[in-house]
Amino acid sequence: MVILDGKKISNEIKEEIAAEVSQMKERGEKVPHLAAVLVGNDGASLTYVGSKVRSCKKIGFESTLIHLPEETTEDELLKKVHQLNTDDSIDGYIVQLPLPKHIDEQKVLMAVDPDKDVDGFHPVNFGKMALDMESFISATPFGIMELLRRYKVDTEGKHVVVIGRSHIVGRPISILMSQKGEAANCTVTLTHSRTKNMTELTLQADIIVSALGVPHFLKEDMVKDGVVIIDVGITRVPDESKERGYYIAGDVDFESVSKKASFITPVPGGVGPMTIAMLLKNTLLARERHRNIK
Amino acid sequence: MVILDGKKISNEIKEEIAAEVSQMKERGEKVPHLAAVLVGNDGASLTYVGSKVRSCKKIGFESTLIHLPEETTEDELLKKVHQLNTDDSIDGYIVQLPLPKHIDEQKVLMAVDPDKDVDGFHPVNFGKMALDMESFISATPFGIMELLRRYKVDTEGKHVVVIGRSHIVGRPISILMSQKGEAANCTVTLTHSRTKNMTELTLQADIIVSALGVPHFLKEDMVKDGVVIIDVGITRVPDESKERGYYIAGDVDFESVSKKASFITPVPGGVGPMTIAMLLKNTLLARERHRNIK
Repeated sequence: MVILDGKKISNEIKEEIAAEVSQMKERGEKVPHLAAVLVGNDGASLTYVGSKVRSCKKIGFESTLIHLPEETTEDELLKKVHQLNTDDSIDGYIVQLPLPKHIDEQKVLMAVDPDKDVDGFHPVNFGKMALDMESFISATPFGIMELLRRYKVDTEGKHVVVIGRSHIVGRPISILMSQKGEAANCTVTLTHSRTKNMTELTLQADIIVSALGVPHFLKEDMVKDGVVIIDVGITRVPDESKERGYYIAGDVDFESVSKKASFITPVPGGVGPMTIAMLLKNTLLARERHRNIK
Repeated sequence: MVILDGKKISNEIKEEIAAEVSQMKERGEKVPHLAAVLVGNDGASLTYVGSKVRSCKKIGFESTLIHLPEETTEDELLKKVHQLNTDDSIDGYIVQLPLPKHIDEQKVLMAVDPDKDVDGFHPVNFGKMALDMESFISATPFGIMELLRRYKVDTEGKHVVVIGRSHIVGRPISILMSQKGEAANCTVTLTHSRTKNMTELTLQADIIVSALGVPHFLKEDMVKDGVVIIDVGITRVPDESKERGYYIAGDVDFESVSKKASFITPVPGGVGPMTIAMLLKNTLLARERHRNIK
């Protein structure tokens, strides 16, 4: 059994990007610049955005944090988005979700220039991804693909069962893994809350990608020997014995399932760390594409 | 066993659209206007486009056929596309594929204004479809969904096996049927040329959508009793006994499979006739959306 070590791989990716940034600097080129827009003071969002900004600094990117107050209006946010679209110094930016309830998230995401949409949330990027055209692939599915590629997991003709049909994980990974190419060419079954015969399906799976958000959902008796497990679930489970008052649980009952698996991601330390690495990768791609246009 | 009669349903849809157009006329409103661009003299394309234009006339739409010579350059075609984008009298238009080899199809499709893209081929429409936003859904998958809805085929929680991952049928129908909503909420398995255990999968399927283009591929021993069969294959098989020199074959061995099926589409007369009806429906939607903006 091999642990798919997202922490290690994400560090390798960051080091590779840092090396590219050094070369850019040596050549006197502009380095990639990521901006992040945060509205309000949601605790988790502050943590995520802070971590993204710190990662930028570490690898030599420029970064800008735009922290707007909770009471920012939709119009004010849209104005900021348009400003970022036209600011040539910014290569890519993200609008941290969730937004306060008085703001229409979809409207804001639609306003982001697709060429700077390093989160890959704009429909034109999603459509290009689905149609196998050059685009920005959102960080979590992109991270899963990269993890499979780096560990040279054999996917060709394999049966993948994806659990969960969310727009940010289940749907895109089901598309990517059924396309042609590396870490792909799989037969993919997309399952969700209405699926009636979940265990029957997971028992057939060569690869399972679980993005359900139900701690310890996937148990030993639901998988076959040699299965590859990608656990995207990250749930905070209350636990008074911990100093923080909770622990982080994946969808997969790691202890029992790992005994049957050929490859498995831990939680934490699996898919999670890959997402920031792939956001940085997308920002590097954005810089390179903008450079090539000019 | 119930035949999913695409010819009958498509006629019903056309009548419904014609009734709406009559009302538009009575109210003194502009009627929907579809344009079709055809480059060159490919026989099948001429037939398709001619049939689309005739259907427009029958239901009271305005229609314009723009027939350009084979030697039209990419630039000339792009100029025509831009002209159609800015012509307010045109609600929607299609560029008939395939284009001559010296023209980059993708470049042309990307130039079509998504709000007039009644074929639903532009990535932004594909992305919106995949993200469950209002868009134009391309005619074949849209037609399949409509056929299932009109016959009230129970799809909730059913296992659908889609055969073929093309961008115009297999991929979009696999997405649509796994979303929430009517004729959907299915568990969907997308299979293709690299799938190793095809029969194992089709034998589990409650619903099979075959878009492979291999005549008589799906046989009796590959399906279970009560299966719902949607046959999207349309292949011309040479046959000297026919006056035309060929007959039209689907992917499904109709005679044997229909004995086990609860619902089945014939070929011809199943999915085929639905596509023109849904193109007209999209053009009506385009008119309504443009009217609502103004």
